[in-house]
Amino acid sequence: MEFSSKLLERAVNEMSQLPGIGKRTALRLVLHMLKQPKEQTTALAEALQTMRNDVKFCKSCHNISDVEVCEICANPNRDHTLVCVVEDIRDVMAIENTSSFKGLYHVLGGKISPMDGIGPHDLNINSLVNKVKEGKIKELIFALSSTMEGDTTNFYIFKQIQEFNVFTSTIARGISVGDELEYADEITLGRSIVNRVPFESSLKL
Amino acid sequence: MEFSSKLLERAVNEMSQLPGIGKRTALRLVLHMLKQPKEQTTALAEALQTMRNDVKFCKSCHNISDVEVCEICANPNRDHTLVCVVEDIRDVMAIENTSSFKGLYHVLGGKISPMDGIGPHDLNINSLVNKVKEGKIKELIFALSSTMEGDTTNFYIFKQIQEFNVFTSTIARGISVGDELEYADEITLGRSIVNRVPFESSLKL
Repeated sequence: MEFSSKLLERAVNEMSQLPGIGKRTALRLVLHMLKQPKEQTTALAEALQTMRNDVKFCKSCHNISDVEVCEICANPNRDHTLVCVVEDIRDVMAIENTSSFKGLYHVLGGKISPMDGIGPHDLNINSLVNKVKEGKIKELIFALSSTMEGDTTNFYIFKQIQEFNVFTSTIARGISVGDELEYADEITLGRSIVNRVPFESSLKL
Repeated sequence: MEFSSKLLERAVNEMSQLPGIGKRTALRLVLHMLKQPKEQTTALAEALQTMRNDVKFCKSCHNISDVEVCEICANPNRDHTLVCVVEDIRDVMAIENTSSFKGLYHVLGGKISPMDGIGPHDLNINSLVNKVKEGKIKELIFALSSTMEGDTTNFYIFKQIQEFNVFTSTIARGISVGDELEYADEITLGRSIVNRVPFESSLKL
């Protein structure tokens, strides 16, 4: 792609560093900015830089936060003995949206994935094990995605905390609400039968 | 969507102002930036701001340029009597990539589109008409997209310059090279038959 302006080229190149944004999309976005008022680009540039420089991670759960300890960890009304282990902050947001969880979170920051060069030491696993060691946690819920990497990570953490007195659980796998049985994959359908729940308890939700 | 950090929220909101980028995509992009070195976000922010503030438009053809008159308009080896009218700078880049055009361009900056509130005066039409008035242009090639808006814009310009001594043409519409006839739409197929070319001239390309 040949550009008639070095400034434009640099902006497009920087934009296309972002995941899922190719040169064409980057060019479309940059040309859109040129049609908008200058203030809009300034606002975007400043928001990104301030965010990158000033954002903090909660020192307890590693969730993104503006303060040292995030709102969830600082909330005395939540169950501090129940911790849900998730991959990243998007999962925290997704679970918070359901309003059905009143414990705390622990954000790992990824999954163990040798293919991508991510080992246990690149993730926030040590701080989780330490929390368990302190004995304040009664139950740990694994809420990682159900992939090879997710399962590996679950198992790694499980092995690390096995010796301590903590109950571990994993979120239920089954047929999505509203899905047709015939289109479900075999493993999910199989698990949903093995892990069936009393009909009366399903009425409560 | 509830965010645990105002900084993150602001960055996501600004990002999602861009066309085709929703809140979820914006969040994905912003979280990616958090995993990369700070310098990368700084570079992106600076590139966008410099581009927005310092980029110039060629005063002759309105193409994006770092100087007052763009490289194409300043090139004495190009045919200054042949002008190709395009919608935006992406079209200039696309035509330049083919290496088959040696004239100049005129970038309108859009198409007449009452639905989007874009009238003739929002586009670089006056400067084109003035160029034609000066009598230096022999041929004007319309290379707008073949939509209602494109055709309207072509016709509007044609009416404005009709009285002057200039030959107008439009790029050929036909079956794309490599396309199957049976999948072509009727209008394109019809035009490709009406505007058929001598077989020998098709051998030259």
